[in-house]
Amino acid sequence: MKLSHIEHIGIAVKNLNEAIAYYENVLGLKCYAIEEVADQKVKTAFFMVGQTKIELLEATDPEGSIGKFIEKRGEGIHHIAFAVDNLPSALTELEEKSIQLIDKQPRKGAEGLNIAFLHPKSTKGVLTELCEDPVKK
Amino acid sequence: MKLSHIEHIGIAVKNLNEAIAYYENVLGLKCYAIEEVADQKVKTAFFMVGQTKIELLEATDPEGSIGKFIEKRGEGIHHIAFAVDNLPSALTELEEKSIQLIDKQPRKGAEGLNIAFLHPKSTKGVLTELCEDPVKK
Repeated sequence: MKLSHIEHIGIAVKNLNEAIAYYENVLGLKCYAIEEVADQKVKTAFFMVGQTKIELLEATDPEGSIGKFIEKRGEGIHHIAFAVDNLPSALTELEEKSIQLIDKQPRKGAEGLNIAFLHPKSTKGVLTELCEDPVKK
Repeated sequence: MKLSHIEHIGIAVKNLNEAIAYYENVLGLKCYAIEEVADQKVKTAFFMVGQTKIELLEATDPEGSIGKFIEKRGEGIHHIAFAVDNLPSALTELEEKSIQLIDKQPRKGAEGLNIAFLHPKSTKGVLTELCEDPVKK
């Protein structure tokens, strides 16, 4: 498996508008997209910094994974997403290495990417996402 | 303030050697440096992925900040570090915006960088580091 770069870092926030204001007015980044991902029960906001995106995640349902994360741990860094060229091949390789996959098959994530999550039990505590850009293939 | 890229992501791990084995053998990254940072009470290992480093952090003292983090929350993502061109100027700007600084003046971090941390109370829950490379100035 070849990871080309960090595609994004997912950050759970309580209030998307307040967090956008912080990232724009304090850190000087520019929000270029806001998107609701219904099946993940989140509303997201994206910023680019170098070759990596910051993905802010606000829960749209307290029972979703971001809602539960914030309830348990408060706001903070939620996951890291690495870019890979061939996601199905990467998942096959990871299964062969006994890594616990949350998604055994790629599914659609924000921004049209094919994505899959690996369980933090298998990844030294880091909720890890792999992303493949279908347009770049 | 202009953030050029994500300089590194800091990840707290219980056992540095086991974590290095995971990042190398499973994720296919290459550890290019191991460094002990005595005043932060950590032993670190570095990997490059695109323009960003992964910095694994193992506590050398359970009373240090990484030791306490792992005791409280377990292994996982600890902080994000952004690269800035002019760290003293960035800190002045942040103070003017009432951001709580852990380091009011730059200090030396791993790899010879000048660094300063911002308190997660002011940064929507994300322990945030700013880094300036003195060689590039």
